[in-house]
Amino acid sequence: MINASIITIGDELLIGQTIDTNSAYIAQKFNEIGIWVRRRLAVGDNREEIWNALAEEEKHSDIIILTGGLGPTADDITKPLLCEYFGGKLVVNEEVLAHVRYLFEKIYRRTGSILERNLKQAEVPDNCTVLRNDRGSAPGMWFEKVVNPKAINPVTFVSLPGVPHEMKGIVNAELIPRLLKRFSFPTIIHKTAVTMGQGESFIAELIENFESSLPPYIRLAYLPSYGMVKLRLTAFSDNDPVIEKEMNAQFETLKSLVKEYLVSDEDEPIEKVIGEILRQKKKTVGTAESCTGGYIAHLLTSIAGSSDYFKGSVISYANEVKMNLLGVKEQTLITDGAVSEHTVRQMVKGAIDALNVDYALATSGIMGPGGGTDTKPVGMVWIAVGNRQQVIAKEFNFRFDRERNIRQTANAALDMLRKFILAND
Amino acid sequence: MINASIITIGDELLIGQTIDTNSAYIAQKFNEIGIWVRRRLAVGDNREEIWNALAEEEKHSDIIILTGGLGPTADDITKPLLCEYFGGKLVVNEEVLAHVRYLFEKIYRRTGSILERNLKQAEVPDNCTVLRNDRGSAPGMWFEKVVNPKAINPVTFVSLPGVPHEMKGIVNAELIPRLLKRFSFPTIIHKTAVTMGQGESFIAELIENFESSLPPYIRLAYLPSYGMVKLRLTAFSDNDPVIEKEMNAQFETLKSLVKEYLVSDEDEPIEKVIGEILRQKKKTVGTAESCTGGYIAHLLTSIAGSSDYFKGSVISYANEVKMNLLGVKEQTLITDGAVSEHTVRQMVKGAIDALNVDYALATSGIMGPGGGTDTKPVGMVWIAVGNRQQVIAKEFNFRFDRERNIRQTANAALDMLRKFILAND
Repeated sequence: MINASIITIGDELLIGQTIDTNSAYIAQKFNEIGIWVRRRLAVGDNREEIWNALAEEEKHSDIIILTGGLGPTADDITKPLLCEYFGGKLVVNEEVLAHVRYLFEKIYRRTGSILERNLKQAEVPDNCTVLRNDRGSAPGMWFEKVVNPKAINPVTFVSLPGVPHEMKGIVNAELIPRLLKRFSFPTIIHKTAVTMGQGESFIAELIENFESSLPPYIRLAYLPSYGMVKLRLTAFSDNDPVIEKEMNAQFETLKSLVKEYLVSDEDEPIEKVIGEILRQKKKTVGTAESCTGGYIAHLLTSIAGSSDYFKGSVISYANEVKMNLLGVKEQTLITDGAVSEHTVRQMVKGAIDALNVDYALATSGIMGPGGGTDTKPVGMVWIAVGNRQQVIAKEFNFRFDRERNIRQTANAALDMLRKFILAND
Repeated sequence: MINASIITIGDELLIGQTIDTNSAYIAQKFNEIGIWVRRRLAVGDNREEIWNALAEEEKHSDIIILTGGLGPTADDITKPLLCEYFGGKLVVNEEVLAHVRYLFEKIYRRTGSILERNLKQAEVPDNCTVLRNDRGSAPGMWFEKVVNPKAINPVTFVSLPGVPHEMKGIVNAELIPRLLKRFSFPTIIHKTAVTMGQGESFIAELIENFESSLPPYIRLAYLPSYGMVKLRLTAFSDNDPVIEKEMNAQFETLKSLVKEYLVSDEDEPIEKVIGEILRQKKKTVGTAESCTGGYIAHLLTSIAGSSDYFKGSVISYANEVKMNLLGVKEQTLITDGAVSEHTVRQMVKGAIDALNVDYALATSGIMGPGGGTDTKPVGMVWIAVGNRQQVIAKEFNFRFDRERNIRQTANAALDMLRKFILAND
């Protein structure tokens, strides 16, 4: 088993100003090719902490990835440190130099001292292999160091820029192909079932016997989030057909046990599942959102190619917009209020007409922290979904914080929509 | 200086299935009260790795926070391990037992074996202090261990559930108040200037002399993301008025140097800045979004109280919706295309009328990966902002991946809107 550690560098990670998405991306890519990430570590822009992290991780891991600390500005200390750690010296790399010049002169159209500052990025330690960065000026760097003389391979260290877009480019174009050449990998199989509508305890109950009878080489993990529970089976197969067959059989059993709540048997979000159903059925969808404020439209349109089935939305935060664009009756808003069954039903009908779509969903609720009353507390939400023939509506009570209420509402609405489309066609 | 380590537990973090937002939240909260998070660490659901992480971090940190591994399902191994690590044994805590019973019987309305499974969550090591979890069934646990007999305080270990909503509840209601009682903290001052519209190199150039003349106890960091660069000054003040005064003076200088690009002198997102301006001016806003698909509406409505100034949006992915709801002329769509200056200008006017708002913005572009042509490549975007008197429009070319193109477009549009409101009132 090839083990890896990921070290992310930057004070912004330690004061909570930035959420680390790089580690998750690298971990995913490594997992696909069979590298097990055993530890992830975040340290500050501090020479000693970075040095110690390298020294510690090299004892246990075959591959050590560093991200961050390579930008053009002065708070970056990583490159000199790497030089010293691996006993090299900084030299200008002509290829990187030409690339930085090209980027700044032709693409960004900058000259003068800005260019000067960035030309420094062409300096790399003379004992590393440069990994080309097509999307920016800071190149990746690959080092090897013999840590344990008895090991087959030296430990591989790779330093990548922290800007996610640039890091991703180097990982795909340079890092993964080189790793595949350098190591021979076992296979890790993951199979993930996405369920919605029940909590972790309920699902655990449902599959209790299944779980306790799993063979020891297959692990089950529960991953709950925002009204969803993902169930993930993991095995190290080493391409053993017996293990692969057993894994498939166990996964089929798992799926059948949770089938009432099963959204997908791949690790994909519900908005993608809905998109595939709509594309297959050649149907269109739109949304009428009050409390979710466009978040559901955003989820649906975050899927590439969603313009094939998503036509649009009316985000009706104000009652005036509910009336003018969705045809919600003023009397309903006065009698029942905006957060009510009648309102969301009218919003669905209005959206189907205004957007000329086959299906629509509508949300109206109190997301908090303000705006709650005794009869309509924070977290109370009405959701409706429907087509031209039929509309169904349901009340939910979430009572979390604003952000989570929005996400839970979006997922609940999308799950209602998915079920409605499958049942009414 | 009180140092802390944050250890997050879960295989899902190591295979990249989950992005760790808990660490950033805890780091923020710690920073506010003057605790320096020196390392963050993610390890798998693996006894040895968790044990080693505890043993390693206790050598360098005063406070060690663990999150995750406390749920009701069988992949959790943290609690038995904590028992062994601190030499305690699992006993039922009556207060937690009553709370779990209350949650499941009264709130979730579950009985039978689901309840049984969760009653186990009332078992805690007998040598910990329980931190009450109002939002779920798994309590937090506070342990102390004398690591270095010469140190003033024992090392504090706190284990928290991994569900963000529950973790946050315990941090605020239990953990922070207890830490404030237990330790006496120095003060870390951060001051953050948010800039938009220029890259890291350009900003670095602008403040080069400022940066090189900063006193040694004030550090500057650059935090670039999605068309934004945050500039953060940090000092450990220990309530020293001289340091505080110097920090304020330096921050004022920094702000004046970047004033043309300055969005905020607090670490807050642009959608909050716009909200405050609109509330102050008693004006309203709406959006007409094609390529951003509701993401801008989502950003604006993610701010609590946004219903005071945000009235709604028309998400017009389909040309038909651009015509029907926003009054974009069919001829414009034929002649100029959806991604064009004329289209976004008409979208702004249409949104102002349809939503009856003072200001509106409009976006139309090609977010990728598909849909690009030679004349309109992926990443090409037109953005317009305006009021009833005037509309301005601008072309952008981003050329990143879909997700980043959407975020860059949203930030660029919001920055145009902010400037327009400030200039036209």
